[in-house]
Amino acid sequence: MLHRKKPILKRRKHHVDVPAITPGAAATVVPASPLNSPLNTTMMGYGPNGSDQVALNDISEIAAFSQKWPVVWIDIDGLGNVELAQSLATLYGLDRLVLEDIFDTGHLPKLEEYDNYLFMILKNGLFDEVFQTEQISMILMEKVVITFQERPGDSFNQVRKRIRSATGRICKFGSDYLAYAIIDAVIESYYPIMEIIKKRLDALEDNFLTSSGSEVIGQIHAIKNDLLFLHSAIWPVHNITIALAHDDLPVITTATSHFLRDCQDQAKRVTELSEFYRMIAGDLIATYLAYSDSNANQVMKLLTMVTTIFIPLSFIVGLYGMNFDRSASPYNMPELGWRYGYPIVLLSMLAIACAIMYMFKRKGWFKTRT
Amino acid sequence: MLHRKKPILKRRKHHVDVPAITPGAAATVVPASPLNSPLNTTMMGYGPNGSDQVALNDISEIAAFSQKWPVVWIDIDGLGNVELAQSLATLYGLDRLVLEDIFDTGHLPKLEEYDNYLFMILKNGLFDEVFQTEQISMILMEKVVITFQERPGDSFNQVRKRIRSATGRICKFGSDYLAYAIIDAVIESYYPIMEIIKKRLDALEDNFLTSSGSEVIGQIHAIKNDLLFLHSAIWPVHNITIALAHDDLPVITTATSHFLRDCQDQAKRVTELSEFYRMIAGDLIATYLAYSDSNANQVMKLLTMVTTIFIPLSFIVGLYGMNFDRSASPYNMPELGWRYGYPIVLLSMLAIACAIMYMFKRKGWFKTRT
Amino acid sequence: MLHRKKPILKRRKHHVDVPAITPGAAATVVPASPLNSPLNTTMMGYGPNGSDQVALNDISEIAAFSQKWPVVWIDIDGLGNVELAQSLATLYGLDRLVLEDIFDTGHLPKLEEYDNYLFMILKNGLFDEVFQTEQISMILMEKVVITFQERPGDSFNQVRKRIRSATGRICKFGSDYLAYAIIDAVIESYYPIMEIIKKRLDALEDNFLTSSGSEVIGQIHAIKNDLLFLHSAIWPVHNITIALAHDDLPVITTATSHFLRDCQDQAKRVTELSEFYRMIAGDLIATYLAYSDSNANQVMKLLTMVTTIFIPLSFIVGLYGMNFDRSASPYNMPELGWRYGYPIVLLSMLAIACAIMYMFKRKGWFKTRT
Amino acid sequence: MLHRKKPILKRRKHHVDVPAITPGAAATVVPASPLNSPLNTTMMGYGPNGSDQVALNDISEIAAFSQKWPVVWIDIDGLGNVELAQSLATLYGLDRLVLEDIFDTGHLPKLEEYDNYLFMILKNGLFDEVFQTEQISMILMEKVVITFQERPGDSFNQVRKRIRSATGRICKFGSDYLAYAIIDAVIESYYPIMEIIKKRLDALEDNFLTSSGSEVIGQIHAIKNDLLFLHSAIWPVHNITIALAHDDLPVITTATSHFLRDCQDQAKRVTELSEFYRMIAGDLIATYLAYSDSNANQVMKLLTMVTTIFIPLSFIVGLYGMNFDRSASPYNMPELGWRYGYPIVLLSMLAIACAIMYMFKRKGWFKTRT
Amino acid sequence: MLHRKKPILKRRKHHVDVPAITPGAAATVVPASPLNSPLNTTMMGYGPNGSDQVALNDISEIAAFSQKWPVVWIDIDGLGNVELAQSLATLYGLDRLVLEDIFDTGHLPKLEEYDNYLFMILKNGLFDEVFQTEQISMILMEKVVITFQERPGDSFNQVRKRIRSATGRICKFGSDYLAYAIIDAVIESYYPIMEIIKKRLDALEDNFLTSSGSEVIGQIHAIKNDLLFLHSAIWPVHNITIALAHDDLPVITTATSHFLRDCQDQAKRVTELSEFYRMIAGDLIATYLAYSDSNANQVMKLLTMVTTIFIPLSFIVGLYGMNFDRSASPYNMPELGWRYGYPIVLLSMLAIACAIMYMFKRKGWFKTRT
Repeated sequence: MLHRKKPILKRRKHHVDVPAITPGAAATVVPASPLNSPLNTTMMGYGPNGSDQVALNDISEIAAFSQKWPVVWIDIDGLGNVELAQSLATLYGLDRLVLEDIFDTGHLPKLEEYDNYLFMILKNGLFDEVFQTEQISMILMEKVVITFQERPGDSFNQVRKRIRSATGRICKFGSDYLAYAIIDAVIESYYPIMEIIKKRLDALEDNFLTSSGSEVIGQIHAIKNDLLFLHSAIWPVHNITIALAHDDLPVITTATSHFLRDCQDQAKRVTELSEFYRMIAGDLIATYLAYSDSNANQVMKLLTMVTTIFIPLSFIVGLYGMNFDRSASPYNMPELGWRYGYPIVLLSMLAIACAIMYMFKRKGWFKTRT
Repeated sequence: MLHRKKPILKRRKHHVDVPAITPGAAATVVPASPLNSPLNTTMMGYGPNGSDQVALNDISEIAAFSQKWPVVWIDIDGLGNVELAQSLATLYGLDRLVLEDIFDTGHLPKLEEYDNYLFMILKNGLFDEVFQTEQISMILMEKVVITFQERPGDSFNQVRKRIRSATGRICKFGSDYLAYAIIDAVIESYYPIMEIIKKRLDALEDNFLTSSGSEVIGQIHAIKNDLLFLHSAIWPVHNITIALAHDDLPVITTATSHFLRDCQDQAKRVTELSEFYRMIAGDLIATYLAYSDSNANQVMKLLTMVTTIFIPLSFIVGLYGMNFDRSASPYNMPELGWRYGYPIVLLSMLAIACAIMYMFKRKGWFKTRT
Repeated sequence: MLHRKKPILKRRKHHVDVPAITPGAAATVVPASPLNSPLNTTMMGYGPNGSDQVALNDISEIAAFSQKWPVVWIDIDGLGNVELAQSLATLYGLDRLVLEDIFDTGHLPKLEEYDNYLFMILKNGLFDEVFQTEQISMILMEKVVITFQERPGDSFNQVRKRIRSATGRICKFGSDYLAYAIIDAVIESYYPIMEIIKKRLDALEDNFLTSSGSEVIGQIHAIKNDLLFLHSAIWPVHNITIALAHDDLPVITTATSHFLRDCQDQAKRVTELSEFYRMIAGDLIATYLAYSDSNANQVMKLLTMVTTIFIPLSFIVGLYGMNFDRSASPYNMPELGWRYGYPIVLLSMLAIACAIMYMFKRKGWFKTRT
Repeated sequence: MLHRKKPILKRRKHHVDVPAITPGAAATVVPASPLNSPLNTTMMGYGPNGSDQVALNDISEIAAFSQKWPVVWIDIDGLGNVELAQSLATLYGLDRLVLEDIFDTGHLPKLEEYDNYLFMILKNGLFDEVFQTEQISMILMEKVVITFQERPGDSFNQVRKRIRSATGRICKFGSDYLAYAIIDAVIESYYPIMEIIKKRLDALEDNFLTSSGSEVIGQIHAIKNDLLFLHSAIWPVHNITIALAHDDLPVITTATSHFLRDCQDQAKRVTELSEFYRMIAGDLIATYLAYSDSNANQVMKLLTMVTTIFIPLSFIVGLYGMNFDRSASPYNMPELGWRYGYPIVLLSMLAIACAIMYMFKRKGWFKTRT
Repeated sequence: MLHRKKPILKRRKHHVDVPAITPGAAATVVPASPLNSPLNTTMMGYGPNGSDQVALNDISEIAAFSQKWPVVWIDIDGLGNVELAQSLATLYGLDRLVLEDIFDTGHLPKLEEYDNYLFMILKNGLFDEVFQTEQISMILMEKVVITFQERPGDSFNQVRKRIRSATGRICKFGSDYLAYAIIDAVIESYYPIMEIIKKRLDALEDNFLTSSGSEVIGQIHAIKNDLLFLHSAIWPVHNITIALAHDDLPVITTATSHFLRDCQDQAKRVTELSEFYRMIAGDLIATYLAYSDSNANQVMKLLTMVTTIFIPLSFIVGLYGMNFDRSASPYNMPELGWRYGYPIVLLSMLAIACAIMYMFKRKGWFKTRT
């Protein structure tokens, strides 16, 4: 059974029967939130002088907060609160399509440039028995970063800690550095998954010959599929970081470009690793099939040997089991009446068996190769 | 049986035995319309101030309409009306080759630049049990867009709605934006097909081991073929959008270039998805063959075990079925007269069977692996 | 058997033991003409004012003809007349290597730039049961085009007709446009071949399961080989058109460059189609092998079932065919004397057969999958 | 069993819960040294006037040494002395992440640029029954080079000798040339491994048909795996040398750039060789499988021949072993009472066997093809 | 057995324990010449006014010769004379590494730029039952070209003839044109080999079905190996010609660059041909395996048919061969005493055999497909 829990691709929503593209009107078309889970919305502000984090209950709190801190990060953990998202969209003048994309978790990673903000979709890597992804939507503005996490449970705990500790580079830079830190965290989420896949491949190789065929094949198939999905989730991030680092995007400063280039390298490395493991998995299955082929050959040789040795003997004993009437004619099986008939037959059969076995021995069939 | 209903490639018509290339002369060489279906010809005009749509019955109506509206879109739905097409060609001074290409539905997508208009052929994606395409021919002029749809049934309903609603971007831009909207609609037509293919692959993977071999193989073959055809229909669109967005074509404004670049990304994404699914289909068939191989191994092991166990026993019972005349000689099968001859033989055979089975058990052949 | 009638590659003639490279000396080294067929040499002149075509019997006629017409096209149909070729070489100062290349039909397409002319070798595509090529050599000068066709039978009938009709673009342009028209005709010669290959692939797919294995395999092999040869014949043409359209070659005017770029697209399209069909052929053979594999599995299952059911039964009937002397001992096969011995054995065998068949049924082996 | 002794990829340490990134604080987070082996720390200084090498016991010795020699090379052989590394980090102001990377031997080769030094990780190639790598970390500063070798045992003996001999180019150049010499030594470490792999492939090909299947398959699998790992260890070095030679890195002089370009070629050549050998290994296994396939065919033909010849004969002898009561009816097996019954049956069987064998002979099955 | 007579790769000699890199010192480290064959050293001088060729016995003769002729070509045919090579190195100030490379025949083709000369290693293609290469080392200076040929026997006879004839372009150009002529000769040496490989492939395809499996497989393996080695020998030459034609190398004049670009095309063509033939060889083996697969299917069908027909019959005859005591019970095989028992059994068996055969006939198994 396939273990893809999420659709890779969802049909882009058609947006043609909606009269106006004013942000306020978005409320009417945003689909019912796919995950009505309890969500946790936080607002974090920081600057060279420190940081503060509060729960965001009301949009009106943002204005005062934004005045106080150079960079404000609004994080919505879970996709359960459509109203809040719409209020934010109204406040910051976000495009309606952006809102739709946030609540449609079937997108591949992408970057879109708008007049005064950048919008990007990323995929956090998870591994809960099977490879899964969590969609991260991020809106990057001059002074504000808004992130939407598909699943409850904070994926950016480490970023938060670095801000709170208030000593790292992060507090001296602007919102673009925060965006970099989040992208970096997303890319880093793939390393543990790679480690798990590596361990599975190692385990497979260790238990190669003792496992059953269908198990080995099924597991390698699952790993190859996981790597394919992983590749399709991380590869676009590489392109996003290239665009962020090299295009003249308004919000990105030169200083942060430098760090983004590092992200680009990392994304490329993850992609290369996924291809590397795919090659190993491919080699494994090829080797398995070669073993299995060699094994089948041995089985067939055994069958052929047994058959070739016994079929002539069975013929002979069948021959002397015929009931020709010896009294009716002297030509009818006179051997049966010979004094040494039986011993001769026995010895003949022994000789035949030995001859056939010798032939097989010379052909080298007796070496067990499995 | 192949499910390609349309030829992929039709031989380009030779145009050498026609005396003049004046548009009016085209009437004599245009082939009989391939689809003599009832057709529906509409003329739509729009601008910032509103829009109007009428059925186009007579070419003479166009002039007045064109004066009234900044952009006029003439849509011929179905290829049944050659005369109309020729009248349009005369009116707008279209090349005769353009006319021929419109009525030849075997083309791959392409873009041709003429002096005062662009001509392009696109392929709308359909899925009616098998993947199919509808040829869309478009002539893009300064103020007029003419489209020919191969099959009756409007594929551009959404574009029409956006125009009628008169509020979207579409009404503020020129004819090039309309062309963009049509190209976008064509590319979007592939997403539902991708979704269908994805569902089929998922279903195949779910019913992998319970389906019959030929069914699995046939379905994967069909999917791979569909993806190949789909790829050949969408890939040229990518090149067309590159040319439209980057070449200095007279009709295309810079503003629309920006949107065309989005089309380019979308076309690339569809292409990448089709390759991605092709890889999944390839993995599926490889895994199926590996299972089937492993399965065949099991079958052969069973055959070999049964044969190896019973052939020696059959030999033994055959042996004592021989009719050597015990009265003629004491050497002739004296075992048959022993007191415990029969039980000894039975026990020996049991011992032999057990020994052989133990050998197989040690080889691990008893584990059912299928 | 291979169906390549022509060598793909012929060893380049060594030209080192010839003292001078004066064109007149060429006569001594040109190899015996490979095809001493009756040949047909025509001379055609044309310009905006009309055209004329005469049979070329004597070189001296060319001078007057050239004065009369802006463009002169000398076409030698068949490689039987070496003297004529040498006279032409002398007249126009052609390199000796050019002459050699014309008469060596084993070349791949290529373009060579000389001081005052361009020399190119092309391959016309033919299909006479198998894919074949006809070598077309063309010398393009300021006002003269000379073509050599390997096989008798005019391949450029259409070009000729366009000239004669005297209305097309061809008569207004110079010799470079004629060269373009010839290249275009060569590339177009591949479309009908593609169509034939497509039909063969369709037919193969339709008769997949009813044809014999070796037939299917042999035909796909032939098609793949044809496509490979076709690819190697058309791909260099793509490079030639690139060089003609983009390099600053003296004879090519900017106006013609534009048309050559179209040739380039066409050559690329043929190449892509050949790769596309190669992929389809590859998929077909993979699918055939998968079917055949699945088929073999079924055959082996049948064999295994029959053997597994009957071998134990045969053992039992063999057992009671033994001739132990029941009178010698009460332990010797007393079953044979039981009242219900025979029915019990029959029923036991029936039970065994049913049990084994039930086991196979549970394993799902009874479903016919082929 | 897999022979990768080292993990290919280790999860990057998270560095977020550490308050300050001051080098001194590194002591608290550096992981326990993976190899608590006796280590050997040397300090070498050289210049155009000569060279000196001393064991480094105390950091304080460095200052005087650095004043005396233009270039100082500190080499720590083994990763057992974390304190020393931390002292060096404090002395030269190295980033804490650098220290972590040095002691984490699971990295792929990489280059990192810091404000006043370059940090790179390389992989020395070793071959101790299986392919292995030794991590080499290098910090390149204006006048100082620090190297960490994962395993005890000097890998840079040759570099050291060249310095001591004091005549080569190395003594006239700066620290960047020393870095080049070390990178060169690392790349050269792969050549003997390539030679070993080449010999193994040759040996495999020589013993192809006499070795057992699982052995051949296992060895080719091991070689392919080795080549894959080797490739992943050397390929990034190619990128590192590109960056070193072409980027405007502060420490690298133009003169050394020239030599680094040579390294780049060498790294590319090793990579190409590894791909070349991988192709050979792939060809070998394909050929092996083809042989094995052909072999299996022969085995099956033998089985089929033996079975096809003897099964009808066994049927016949079984037929005349039936016990129909000839006294009860004249129709019950009268053949048994014929005068020449037995000879006729014998001759018939001989005829049948000959006929079947003749049929096989005509089919060409008697040729031994294995 | 592998037919590579030469190692593909030899470990680069370590040159670190040698005190000085002065050319004179080379004598002490140059390895014993691998081929102590009689060698033939010639010195050829030429210019627009003529040419002269003498045997080179003493280095001192070179000076006078060089004054007389604009270009001097020193050719050492065979690697037996190390002293001469060293004298030349001293005379022209060649690097010691160059000398080492000349006498190490395990190099891949390469180009190295030195201050006042270019050094390149090429591989002449030979075919003496198996594909082989001869290493050609060339040192190209302003007025002098030195070549070393690995094997006795002049490979540059044609070049020599062109010089002697004193009429070709070669005598008007400088030493760089001579280098071009030599590279051209090296590349041309691959064409006859390609022709041989082509003939072998054709022969294989012709004798496909009549040859034994192992022979076909072995020959294709050999051809693929040859093509791989050939590719690795010619591909670097392509890069060398690119560098020579496009880099601003001091010795190469613009005029010669033009010819080198032709070499580049030729090298690319050889490479493409080698890939083309590799594809054909790959197709051949795939087709062979498909045939063999289909063949195996037929064999198994035959086995299954024979077994399926006779096993039930054998069971029946075995059944009536049982010795149940008919006198002990009326239930014991009363059939044996029936009047028509035997005919009924015979007819039943015939019916069973016919039924089974009819079943196979309906399945289409009787068609011979091999």
